[in-house]
Amino acid sequence: MSDQDPLVIFTPSGKRGHFAPGTKVLDAARQLGVDLDSVCGGRGICSKCQIQPSFGDFPKHGVTSSPDHLSEWNSVEERYKSKRGMIDGRRLGCQATVEGDVIIDVPPESQVHKQVVRKSADTREIVMDPATKLYYVEVEEPDMHEPSGDLERLCTALAEQWDLAHVRGDLRVLTQLQPALRKGEWKVTVAVHHGDGLTEARIMQVWPGYYDGAIYGLAIDLGSTTIAAHLCDLRDGKVVTSSGIMNPQIRFGEDLMSRVSYSMMNPGGAAEMTTAVRTAMQALINTIAAEAVIDPALIMEAVFVANPVMHHLLLGIDPVELGQAPFALATSDALTLWATELDLDIHPSARVYILPCIAGHVGADAAAVALSEAPGQSDDLVLIVDVGTNAEILLGNREKVLACSSPTGPAFEGAQISSGQRAAPGAIERVEIDPITKEPRFRVIGSEKWSDDPDFAAEAGQITGICGSGIIEAIAEMRMAGLVDAGGLIGSAEQTGTARCVPEGRTNAYVLFEGDDTSPRITVTNGDVRAIQLAKAALYAGARLLMDQMEVEHVDRVVLAGAFGAHISPKHAMVLGMIPDCEVDKVTSAGNAAGTGARIALLNSAARREVESIVRQIVKVETAVEPRFQEHFVAASNIPHATDSYERLRAVAPLPDVSFNTGGGEAGGRRRRRRG
Amino acid sequence: MSDQDPLVIFTPSGKRGHFAPGTKVLDAARQLGVDLDSVCGGRGICSKCQIQPSFGDFPKHGVTSSPDHLSEWNSVEERYKSKRGMIDGRRLGCQATVEGDVIIDVPPESQVHKQVVRKSADTREIVMDPATKLYYVEVEEPDMHEPSGDLERLCTALAEQWDLAHVRGDLRVLTQLQPALRKGEWKVTVAVHHGDGLTEARIMQVWPGYYDGAIYGLAIDLGSTTIAAHLCDLRDGKVVTSSGIMNPQIRFGEDLMSRVSYSMMNPGGAAEMTTAVRTAMQALINTIAAEAVIDPALIMEAVFVANPVMHHLLLGIDPVELGQAPFALATSDALTLWATELDLDIHPSARVYILPCIAGHVGADAAAVALSEAPGQSDDLVLIVDVGTNAEILLGNREKVLACSSPTGPAFEGAQISSGQRAAPGAIERVEIDPITKEPRFRVIGSEKWSDDPDFAAEAGQITGICGSGIIEAIAEMRMAGLVDAGGLIGSAEQTGTARCVPEGRTNAYVLFEGDDTSPRITVTNGDVRAIQLAKAALYAGARLLMDQMEVEHVDRVVLAGAFGAHISPKHAMVLGMIPDCEVDKVTSAGNAAGTGARIALLNSAARREVESIVRQIVKVETAVEPRFQEHFVAASNIPHATDSYERLRAVAPLPDVSFNTGGGEAGGRRRRRRG
Repeated sequence: MSDQDPLVIFTPSGKRGHFAPGTKVLDAARQLGVDLDSVCGGRGICSKCQIQPSFGDFPKHGVTSSPDHLSEWNSVEERYKSKRGMIDGRRLGCQATVEGDVIIDVPPESQVHKQVVRKSADTREIVMDPATKLYYVEVEEPDMHEPSGDLERLCTALAEQWDLAHVRGDLRVLTQLQPALRKGEWKVTVAVHHGDGLTEARIMQVWPGYYDGAIYGLAIDLGSTTIAAHLCDLRDGKVVTSSGIMNPQIRFGEDLMSRVSYSMMNPGGAAEMTTAVRTAMQALINTIAAEAVIDPALIMEAVFVANPVMHHLLLGIDPVELGQAPFALATSDALTLWATELDLDIHPSARVYILPCIAGHVGADAAAVALSEAPGQSDDLVLIVDVGTNAEILLGNREKVLACSSPTGPAFEGAQISSGQRAAPGAIERVEIDPITKEPRFRVIGSEKWSDDPDFAAEAGQITGICGSGIIEAIAEMRMAGLVDAGGLIGSAEQTGTARCVPEGRTNAYVLFEGDDTSPRITVTNGDVRAIQLAKAALYAGARLLMDQMEVEHVDRVVLAGAFGAHISPKHAMVLGMIPDCEVDKVTSAGNAAGTGARIALLNSAARREVESIVRQIVKVETAVEPRFQEHFVAASNIPHATDSYERLRAVAPLPDVSFNTGGGEAGGRRRRRRG
Repeated sequence: MSDQDPLVIFTPSGKRGHFAPGTKVLDAARQLGVDLDSVCGGRGICSKCQIQPSFGDFPKHGVTSSPDHLSEWNSVEERYKSKRGMIDGRRLGCQATVEGDVIIDVPPESQVHKQVVRKSADTREIVMDPATKLYYVEVEEPDMHEPSGDLERLCTALAEQWDLAHVRGDLRVLTQLQPALRKGEWKVTVAVHHGDGLTEARIMQVWPGYYDGAIYGLAIDLGSTTIAAHLCDLRDGKVVTSSGIMNPQIRFGEDLMSRVSYSMMNPGGAAEMTTAVRTAMQALINTIAAEAVIDPALIMEAVFVANPVMHHLLLGIDPVELGQAPFALATSDALTLWATELDLDIHPSARVYILPCIAGHVGADAAAVALSEAPGQSDDLVLIVDVGTNAEILLGNREKVLACSSPTGPAFEGAQISSGQRAAPGAIERVEIDPITKEPRFRVIGSEKWSDDPDFAAEAGQITGICGSGIIEAIAEMRMAGLVDAGGLIGSAEQTGTARCVPEGRTNAYVLFEGDDTSPRITVTNGDVRAIQLAKAALYAGARLLMDQMEVEHVDRVVLAGAFGAHISPKHAMVLGMIPDCEVDKVTSAGNAAGTGARIALLNSAARREVESIVRQIVKVETAVEPRFQEHFVAASNIPHATDSYERLRAVAPLPDVSFNTGGGEAGGRRRRRRG
């Protein structure tokens, strides 16, 4: 290309170069390293290389771009547009040639490394670069005088046409290869899994001709209580369907340690739990495929994140060592396996990637949170709390990242709460209590109306219970309204001046909803307060331990993560003392960060190398043997805390100095805690 | 080490060096690169590093070696010797230290890369270096403050103690790792499969402590008619058991092309044949394991060689493309698979290596012959003929190697012969016919006596038929005795002057054995002669085609290979015209060269890379479409040949100029040939 040749400028990259007239736009883009997609390799089949020329004077660039600076609309483009449709003004980059100076925009959907749209603007972007990709290739026909296998000629074509060296084929590919090549007249589309640095790239599937369909991947967050999965289109990263089910291992124990105990006490117990979780996984996969109306055999990859016990049980490893110091993992590194090794019936050659674990109590779920929330790239000191049956806690900034886990138990997920239930329509999820009248109002999942709205009853329908975020708000509101004291005791009607405080056994309960014809009475009992106290104290103590290690007294910001973390009100969480004192507007929610981490690893294979590197740099803190954990736990049992004044919180929330301890009854609540 | 330090000289390598007093002999050997084995890494457990010091004056080396130039016999050596025995005078290299000048012999069994003893001195040596090896390692205990997985610490130990980088673990290893490490008190023995350049090394099995047992590999020659397997000890390469069975696919067609036809004509036929051969393979494996009294789960590797059709059927690939030009293989490269992918039930993580194919009609069996017989390293021009239902033919020297296959059909294996049978006790295997009296004598398998020996009847027992080598000798002897003419017609009693020539239909037969109370009458019919003529003409035509390509008129030497090739008499083969004219003493037998090639690839992983490179250099000749093949075939139908004078043969064998063609009846014999 010489300076006399036409100038081509690509936007948004700004990459520019001179090209001889007649050069295909796709070729110009490739030479400049412009990110322009093509699956068919420029043969006018796939239409992935659509570009949008801009015409007019562009003094900024010093060019005048006009329609005749590209070759004429041709028959290939016409055929494509009439058959499949194409936005007016667009061209196929593999058909249009450069004939004069021109400005060419590459629309987002034509970029190979397109960004996946995410809801929240401040979260990290996902750049499409999955481990499994489609390639269209033209294969040389066999020549009996220069004999070579069909697979070897296919691999040569992949090397020549796609720069893919050292690709091999799965055995299953060999059985389908010859008919596919002949049916496609020596043109095929292949799905290639790109390996992981140590394992080689392998062809997983062959389709005759140009395969126009989708291939899918699953991002799965295998939690102690729930299993959540996202089905993603591996071509553009879109989430096609999301679904979740309860972890059936709950019948072997609600928290992780009771499952480890089950394995220790019952010969074959670990295998039983492995079967249970794999069976449930398959059921979830079948459900998702049915919802998305796709063939499960098109799911070519799955990525798993899980805490260490679930990680081991999924892999068929007895988790017994995780139940006792030194909490040795069987393996901590990331794993690439065959789906069949986990008894998963998706694509018969599907690969599974399992994120690395950080430590015996800090699993691949925490690694996924670290990948998604990237504390190591934060300028200010961020505390990330993934709230679940077992909480993962990360603290760090560019200097250093620390991690631990804390056994909160299932209270935050609505379990062990008298009227508790999982987050589902009919569950109370928001609560406000008037500090003067002590009267509550609330909202239930499925309705936007508050319970004091005249239309509430009609719209909300049956009220069935109270979910995790509801119980947190209820207790925090009770604390702010002076209905529960710092020690966690609910006052009596006399002490509080409201008839909503009713005796229940030796303690009191607060009536949130009186019940009606269709709905039960819903109260917050002192037992509920105790359960939440235990859970939140464990959470706080873990965070505090990391702050000790980091030698800091407060954090700059807090991120609440977890499927449930997204629904927690920052102020209420702080009133409860779930998290350390912090400016309330510096507490944000990241949604299911572990699931997002799994999705990032599914859609971007470089992110797999990244998380493998991140976990090696994280400093692990083992809470179970740290004497200060117990100390922090005891101090954190108070609401919000026995010794920390929570000054930043007090500026925005009343914390009345009431006390309902009359010397009798239960107090202060230390019970046996279990890792969960 | 300085010149003042003691001098250590190792034999037989001659490697020498000065070492500080107190240096372990094993360490000295390692520093000098002396091939001294050790599985336990010098911990006095495995005894693989036994050495034999030589004492006395060695003027040649300029040293005096005396017993006190090594440290004293110690308690570790005493314990080992008393428990397990050790040859007097030997020491453990990891216990004895250098204290003065000393000569140390490394006995063959203490070499890592020991040679496997082979029967014939002129065949290539096999140097032990299998893909699967055992390593004893001491693993660091877990530290909860520096958490890492047990597998990762095991891999670190392998890297540090054995220089094995980038090793991973099979999933199954993860499930057994934690109990093994704890039972072995952080010492374990692992079996590592070393990958193949593209795939990484993987731990396949973990044993607590030092594993003193064997691990095994199978070398399998999957032929059209028979399947032969050798069970080898992967530690020393010894063949523990060999066994063979008939290929059950015979019921789908005796030769390869009829099996391809079966697949074409019957939907699911290929899958049916795949199931048949895999089932038979498992039966053979079970038999071998039972004979060797070993657990099949200790068979950690299998190596397969096969012709292309069997290769594809084993892999589950429909061989239909191999039945028609251009005879495209689904894959030609070597394959490394899991045994489970072929439904083989041996070690659950066992790997399978399948040698590469050369061309659509020249398979992995021919590649194995090329590996075993190494024509590319021959100074003189060698023709290698692997005689089977489908013959593989190689011609070459250091300059160039050519290969083709030829569809001989199963006649040489005793099929399609009126009294034919496979080589088994009771089969006639050697024949002589007196040129004057025209009377025969013969030997049967199972007896050393000739049939004219008075003790023959008592020793030989029942005579059941005639095997491949028997029919070759019978017809060649008939030709030399003037009983069959160059055209292949058997003379009548009048024409030959012997009543042993009897009419049979419109032709004649020769009575080899009259039969008795227990044994049937055995004749050589003119149909038998025709079958052998067709088979041998195909063989010769293939060889001749390679000679044309090489532009030579004769070869320097001939190697007859194949399970059956070993039993063919060179002179008789030449009288028949199976092979081109050559000095008779330059025709040798290599036994089952394909099976040997499989064994080499099993025991030496470098040989796998070698054969993969060899096949790329071999020039492939496709006989099926070569017009000259037909021409050569017709000329080769005569016995020995219509146009070649066979001068070298005539110098040692009479070829009477008889003709029994009276103008009527069948003549010259061209029938439809099939590849087989």
